[in-house]
Amino acid sequence: MISQKMVELGSKRSVIREIFEFGKKRAAEVGAENVFDFSLGNPSVPPPECVKETLLDLLQNGDPVLVHGYTSAQGDAKVRQQIAESLNSRFGTNFDAGNLYMTVGAAASLSVCFKALAVPGDEFIAFAPFFTEYRVFVEAAGGTLKVVPPNYEDFQIDFEKFEAMIGEHTKAVIINSPNNPSGAIYSEETIVRLCRILTEKSEALGHPIYLVTDEPYREIVYDGGKVPFLTKYYKNTLVCYSYSKSLSLPGERIGYVLVPGEIVDFEKTYAAICGAGRALGYVCAPSLFQQMVARCEGKTSDISVYKKNRDLLYNGLTEFGYTCVKPDGAFYLFVKAMEEDANAFCERAKKFDLLLVPGDDFGCPGYVRIAYCVKTEQIERSMPAFQKLAETYK
Amino acid sequence: MISQKMVELGSKRSVIREIFEFGKKRAAEVGAENVFDFSLGNPSVPPPECVKETLLDLLQNGDPVLVHGYTSAQGDAKVRQQIAESLNSRFGTNFDAGNLYMTVGAAASLSVCFKALAVPGDEFIAFAPFFTEYRVFVEAAGGTLKVVPPNYEDFQIDFEKFEAMIGEHTKAVIINSPNNPSGAIYSEETIVRLCRILTEKSEALGHPIYLVTDEPYREIVYDGGKVPFLTKYYKNTLVCYSYSKSLSLPGERIGYVLVPGEIVDFEKTYAAICGAGRALGYVCAPSLFQQMVARCEGKTSDISVYKKNRDLLYNGLTEFGYTCVKPDGAFYLFVKAMEEDANAFCERAKKFDLLLVPGDDFGCPGYVRIAYCVKTEQIERSMPAFQKLAETYK
Repeated sequence: MISQKMVELGSKRSVIREIFEFGKKRAAEVGAENVFDFSLGNPSVPPPECVKETLLDLLQNGDPVLVHGYTSAQGDAKVRQQIAESLNSRFGTNFDAGNLYMTVGAAASLSVCFKALAVPGDEFIAFAPFFTEYRVFVEAAGGTLKVVPPNYEDFQIDFEKFEAMIGEHTKAVIINSPNNPSGAIYSEETIVRLCRILTEKSEALGHPIYLVTDEPYREIVYDGGKVPFLTKYYKNTLVCYSYSKSLSLPGERIGYVLVPGEIVDFEKTYAAICGAGRALGYVCAPSLFQQMVARCEGKTSDISVYKKNRDLLYNGLTEFGYTCVKPDGAFYLFVKAMEEDANAFCERAKKFDLLLVPGDDFGCPGYVRIAYCVKTEQIERSMPAFQKLAETYK
Repeated sequence: MISQKMVELGSKRSVIREIFEFGKKRAAEVGAENVFDFSLGNPSVPPPECVKETLLDLLQNGDPVLVHGYTSAQGDAKVRQQIAESLNSRFGTNFDAGNLYMTVGAAASLSVCFKALAVPGDEFIAFAPFFTEYRVFVEAAGGTLKVVPPNYEDFQIDFEKFEAMIGEHTKAVIINSPNNPSGAIYSEETIVRLCRILTEKSEALGHPIYLVTDEPYREIVYDGGKVPFLTKYYKNTLVCYSYSKSLSLPGERIGYVLVPGEIVDFEKTYAAICGAGRALGYVCAPSLFQQMVARCEGKTSDISVYKKNRDLLYNGLTEFGYTCVKPDGAFYLFVKAMEEDANAFCERAKKFDLLLVPGDDFGCPGYVRIAYCVKTEQIERSMPAFQKLAETYK
């Protein structure tokens, strides 16, 4: 009688959320310090000082009616201008307030883009491994998600399989670099080749293929890694950003969609973004946090903790015999399960109170995701458990 | 190529937002004090002290990783329990955390409910005058909105027209009391009769008709007015609440959906609400503000200012010859335009820098909405303009 599709979506929930809930329950039983929950991408490093200082300043010195009031649907104009200028100074771009649409986080940014672009029959292409919720958001917008199988060697793009998947119904391609869950950063070589294909195929098909780039991990990179800024490589790009990870604010839901001026039919595209936000019931992004991110733009939490975590985990696990590609960014290690069925592997890991996420929903069966945005002590304490788990497979 | 429906929604925007933007532009030209902007339901009274105190306490004394971290998709369990207990003590109900789903404001609450309920072909019935965005949200969920014409006498329900509109495709009825834009509160008599009809028709049709009640103005009532708590009158009720108006936080986007335990198929309905939130990209409601509203539940901004504004405006306008029903709640006065075409009337009002919203989009042609959630001085200063406007019609 009611929507069975929604009942199903709400009953299954995301696998990650499911494990997260299990972890909370288990922590109540055996103590949080004995549960090694690596399930959720919830930053463990506090926000930079700027966040607290700015929030306190706005609350103590701002006019509360303005601070908490509605902004324009696309976000406060000054906030958007400040963000544009920060991006320009960081990436040598040329944006202004009119290129930005503030959102309630990256999930909203993506949902708004898909809803703005999709007409019935449209296909969206993602590259495995990919964030599981892409499928939910694309289908909710009326599109179909097609997934390019993973390139297990280095988690760059398998271009042959990608090219074969593009067809007349291809509306957009979704990328996520630094990647959740592989930690890979698409090299400039990968990006140039991807954009060349998109340009050629758009011309051949006679309609643009959009590039939707999901970038919440843009600033979380190690060893001087570089993340190419996509609008400089391909004009029909929509950038989806969230401050959840860079400023350690995942619960606050604040981000933006960036629509470059060079995009085909800019005004209509920007209007469609606004229309989609309206149709999805967003009204405006949270006003206090809009003001805050404008002032903290470009700052990040202390990334060095994640680097330390990555090194500890990567070195430890490879020593115990696990196989994985060393991540260049984000805060996930994507590890080969020690048996074919990653779900069975994760169930066995649970017996050691290791909460890992099977790669199946990321489009990568046989792999598991370890979110290392946790306290460093948790990694240290979990090492014997990882070792014991590996030993059961010997 | 992209979604023309979204382009259209984003290009037109809501009429109210359009006028709001015009007002900001006009204020820059002639000074904010000379623009009498009555267009937007943006509370003019600051939040109660509790809001600032609680936010400061959470920021200064809370663990920032927890304060700003993800909550469960349905909202923090303790927060939901505290809200449930507050509701129980205020309304003699019997809810717990499991009955609540935290949302990003009332628009999200409604969007989530419609998405959870709607299957193709479904009809939703609203009563004019009604909040213009209902149509957008219902259509985005795949439903059709049918509108019962207004009862101009007192803005209660025209039951004959309502009964005639119910049919086999009726999925839900949407009410909003205290009402935006009429300011009317549905009397207990109205509610009892409405619920009796819903019960009878549900039985006759062999499927439940849901009651979706949009209640952001629940606490904004004057002269001791009472707002019946709907779950006590009808079991298949979904309550959509937002703290935007009661706590003067419209930009912060925080509210909830309440699913009573007595609702038919409770578990599936609650799951569908969760699924709809997921499909719409909400992830979770803003975490800092979840914590805050739990502690400030039941408190309100200083409502006496709105009462003073209502009295000033109602007394002044009726004296100048305007016709309107005295509002019992919310902060809107719904006035008969002095010519048939309310749009033309609003255009003429603009010449006196009076920014009013035509009633057409509320399903009430020939009426205009005056949002009196403004500084009392604005009302005082605007009186000569209202008088001059009335004189042009003599």
